[in-house]
Amino acid sequence: MHDIGFIRDLALVMLVAGATTILFQRLRLPVLPGYILAGIVIGPHTPGVLVADPRAISDISNLGVVLLMFTLGLEFSVRKLRQVGGTLLLITVIEVGFMLWLGYQLGLLFGWGGRNALFLGSIMALSSTMVATRALMENGFRQWPFARLVIGMLVAEDMLTIVLLTLLTAIAISGTVETGTAISVVGHLGLFVVAGMIVGLLLLPRLVDYVARFDRDETLLVSVLGICFGTSLLAAWLGFSVALGAFLAGAVVAEARSAARVVHLVEPLRDMFAALFFVAIGLKIDPSQLVHYALPAVCIALTVMLGKSVICSVGMFLIGHDLRTSLRAGLCMAQIGEFSFVIATLGLTLRAVDDFIYPTAVAAALICMVASPYLLRSADLFARIGKHVIPRPLRLLISSYSGWLENLRPVNENAVLAQMFRRLLWHIAVNIALVVTLFVIGAYVNAHNTAWFERWGLSRDMRHSVIWACALFLSLPLLIAVYRKAEALGMLLAELGIRERFAGSYTQAIRQVLAKLIPLTTLLVLALLVGVLGSTILPPRGVALSLVAVCVLFAVILWRGLVKVHARLQAALRETLEKPSSPPNESS
Amino acid sequence: MHDIGFIRDLALVMLVAGATTILFQRLRLPVLPGYILAGIVIGPHTPGVLVADPRAISDISNLGVVLLMFTLGLEFSVRKLRQVGGTLLLITVIEVGFMLWLGYQLGLLFGWGGRNALFLGSIMALSSTMVATRALMENGFRQWPFARLVIGMLVAEDMLTIVLLTLLTAIAISGTVETGTAISVVGHLGLFVVAGMIVGLLLLPRLVDYVARFDRDETLLVSVLGICFGTSLLAAWLGFSVALGAFLAGAVVAEARSAARVVHLVEPLRDMFAALFFVAIGLKIDPSQLVHYALPAVCIALTVMLGKSVICSVGMFLIGHDLRTSLRAGLCMAQIGEFSFVIATLGLTLRAVDDFIYPTAVAAALICMVASPYLLRSADLFARIGKHVIPRPLRLLISSYSGWLENLRPVNENAVLAQMFRRLLWHIAVNIALVVTLFVIGAYVNAHNTAWFERWGLSRDMRHSVIWACALFLSLPLLIAVYRKAEALGMLLAELGIRERFAGSYTQAIRQVLAKLIPLTTLLVLALLVGVLGSTILPPRGVALSLVAVCVLFAVILWRGLVKVHARLQAALRETLEKPSSPPNESS
Repeated sequence: MHDIGFIRDLALVMLVAGATTILFQRLRLPVLPGYILAGIVIGPHTPGVLVADPRAISDISNLGVVLLMFTLGLEFSVRKLRQVGGTLLLITVIEVGFMLWLGYQLGLLFGWGGRNALFLGSIMALSSTMVATRALMENGFRQWPFARLVIGMLVAEDMLTIVLLTLLTAIAISGTVETGTAISVVGHLGLFVVAGMIVGLLLLPRLVDYVARFDRDETLLVSVLGICFGTSLLAAWLGFSVALGAFLAGAVVAEARSAARVVHLVEPLRDMFAALFFVAIGLKIDPSQLVHYALPAVCIALTVMLGKSVICSVGMFLIGHDLRTSLRAGLCMAQIGEFSFVIATLGLTLRAVDDFIYPTAVAAALICMVASPYLLRSADLFARIGKHVIPRPLRLLISSYSGWLENLRPVNENAVLAQMFRRLLWHIAVNIALVVTLFVIGAYVNAHNTAWFERWGLSRDMRHSVIWACALFLSLPLLIAVYRKAEALGMLLAELGIRERFAGSYTQAIRQVLAKLIPLTTLLVLALLVGVLGSTILPPRGVALSLVAVCVLFAVILWRGLVKVHARLQAALRETLEKPSSPPNESS
Repeated sequence: MHDIGFIRDLALVMLVAGATTILFQRLRLPVLPGYILAGIVIGPHTPGVLVADPRAISDISNLGVVLLMFTLGLEFSVRKLRQVGGTLLLITVIEVGFMLWLGYQLGLLFGWGGRNALFLGSIMALSSTMVATRALMENGFRQWPFARLVIGMLVAEDMLTIVLLTLLTAIAISGTVETGTAISVVGHLGLFVVAGMIVGLLLLPRLVDYVARFDRDETLLVSVLGICFGTSLLAAWLGFSVALGAFLAGAVVAEARSAARVVHLVEPLRDMFAALFFVAIGLKIDPSQLVHYALPAVCIALTVMLGKSVICSVGMFLIGHDLRTSLRAGLCMAQIGEFSFVIATLGLTLRAVDDFIYPTAVAAALICMVASPYLLRSADLFARIGKHVIPRPLRLLISSYSGWLENLRPVNENAVLAQMFRRLLWHIAVNIALVVTLFVIGAYVNAHNTAWFERWGLSRDMRHSVIWACALFLSLPLLIAVYRKAEALGMLLAELGIRERFAGSYTQAIRQVLAKLIPLTTLLVLALLVGVLGSTILPPRGVALSLVAVCVLFAVILWRGLVKVHARLQAALRETLEKPSSPPNESS
């Protein structure tokens, strides 16, 4: 009731958004650029100041980013990431890296200086999930084979977005970036993501399903929002972006049985705040300023469209899809959108870039977003033209390449072995990550709670010993699991690698040595890793050695029990991941 | 991403709200007071300041009021108001009036002065729709007969809320209230509501259904929010409350075919912002201050619970419900809630009340909200005790009263006539309201756009004549409709009132005179009304008379055409109101 100003502004924005969505839907134009244009029209820079305080609107529109990332996470799900597959992930990494480099070069070409160029590269690197999925839906392509490729790449890009956001924040704050800092940032990020995912997967889906059993939409919605915002808070507190927290929360909640119901409840919120988000972007733009940066904006847009479509299409083709599918997927990825705005805003807020980057990025994104549906629709045309234009020998080469790829696919037995291999490596990696996380948490506790320990009368060495011992003992089941998986890996490798016809009568002996050597090497590497990462909490050598000795003793005595503990944790995790999600109406 | 402070606060509030909803649901305690308590705990007045800027949270929580009123309107619908029935409306008016008086007296008794006492009365007058409907749902009473009574009264109270809010705003701004001002405020309000409803009913349900046909939830949601906020904006611009606009928008959109889908989409938004709204209330409370006002708060809560339950139960009983149903309905209404906060906030913002009113009202509402489910559950106990305690003669009187009421119900033929009668009166009232609205709009245009007319070189008299003529010509179909309905009413009255056995051979003549007399009287009354209300735009007498003459001529010539225009408008309106609403999954 009071503070009419804010409600008035918000009401105006929603009214304009409503009118825009109806009008643009009617004219079959993409709605998202419509929101931005509407924002420019009612913004403070155009005659007839309509919105009194765009800052307040922009504040709430940030809720849009949180809810957007949360729903992206909900659609992402660990299961889907597995389906994306390694090759697609590789293409995406190459594509994003290439676009980043291209954007950086373009920025230098414009003479904008290194940091502006770096942000420009990041702005150009990430396709817009919202624009691409809309284009797929609106053209009825949702179920086509190439749509799966596009969605896979978008999911992979979402993960890279998180990495980029964190890196850019580090760069913007520290000024420059050294390789060491970058690795540490990525390492910390990886730890947070893996540890967060695993702890989250053990707790949150159960909690959500528990709440869902109350069978009241309101309770479910408010608790899920509590989880979403709580995780964002945790991420922000640990120095990561709010967006990362929301995304992880979504990915974890996606594994709940009632995930479909949650999606249903959260979608209206996302839609409202997404509309606000895009209108708020328009509010910040001064159209008279756009004229000055029209040329760079057009250059950027053309580079994005050409670069993204070419590299994605070529990548898709190289991994064995036909020309038409590759072209469609490539053209569908050929735009930038919401993440570009998020990155540009980040740069502005941290004062890492010049003011003109933001309107230029918005203008370039606008061009891409408007062009996007037409590009997608013209994919077949391009494919037809391509078939006529490409010279005969090249066409022959292309088709023989496809045939060669066809032959390369792993045959049955190898495929099974490769899968076992992958699974063992994956298990070892996850367990190592968890052990490292425990020691990093120990170091964190040591660094931040000194006063608390002093109150208990613990000296520095005592403190280190206690924390180190705790981390070590908590790691025991994980260490044993690493050892056992590495043993299995060793046996598998021995069986495959040492054939009887080469080693003769020594075969068995060599195999046994190899089977023991691999787990021991793994443990040694792990010990070194832990030693380096936990160096700040390493107790005096004597204490450390005796602790290790006690630990080994414990491990031998409690072997079975510890194996069981680990098995139970793993089973709980697997259950969460493999439990079929129920349709939304079953539980409502 | 930037302005982490705001997102941080909001995240904290949502996290706490999520935890509260799970905990209180688990403990089977009402959730709404839980939100308020959680707000007090994390608020700036308790040690460990957690929320940095409660103002920002309070700003967004006002969105909660808009969305709350919109969904109330959606559930209200013109059809439901018809079902409420006259007697229930009467009881509600009496009950609200009585509680208002009781609260006023209590305020005077506390020595708080007249204006504080008036606001206290308003705070105590209105039951909480959210608390009452939750109590019904949670106890599984939703389908019981008394639940229909409670919902009817709540709907009627929602309408009275709007009246109260507008009146209190007028009082708070002008300082005191004169009868004339009050009548003018209520009159303007009535006009706005009736005109808004009719124009809205003709346009908005069609628009919503048109948008729904795009079959995209996002488009539908954003357009509906545009309508909701747009109407709020219009209401605020005309000097009414934002809440009224949102409520009217909801009531009008409720008549769309796709209303069920809209409810489905808007509910998550309301739930989120309702949680924010209640936590934000807690944020404003300083618990140390509560001690000072504990006594008045307890007195107010007891008065509300006792007063509301007694008067509602008695009212229900008097219109013919049995003791148990009456008691249940009464106890279900025995609390105050969200509207009390809205009114207290209004008083504070307009500086019409002292600061202590707000925390006192919140404390009293908290007590009522916590007690509410227990009161409802103990209704049967009260009924049983009542049966034992009430002396025999009184019980006999009670049962004979019920029997007498049973006999009073209108018999068939009379019921049909009564319905025809009601419908004619209703049609006449609506058309008169529309004519009056046209002239009031004319007066408004005249008062606000003088400069615009002067640019066209129109003198004062000319301006008046033009506006008056426009209003008159636009009113023509409505005037003819009033005349025809009044004629029908006259014939009906003549048929019923003048029986042959009284009037003998003069019967036909008297009937004909009566049938003509009534419409002419109606038109005369209407002319006087328009003359008074449109006095500021009355042209010189000669012009006015000639305009009337031209109008009458037109009316006679175009009678059929004008009847057709009116019939078409009426048919469109009736079609909107009587069109069956489709289930939500049919169109999605």
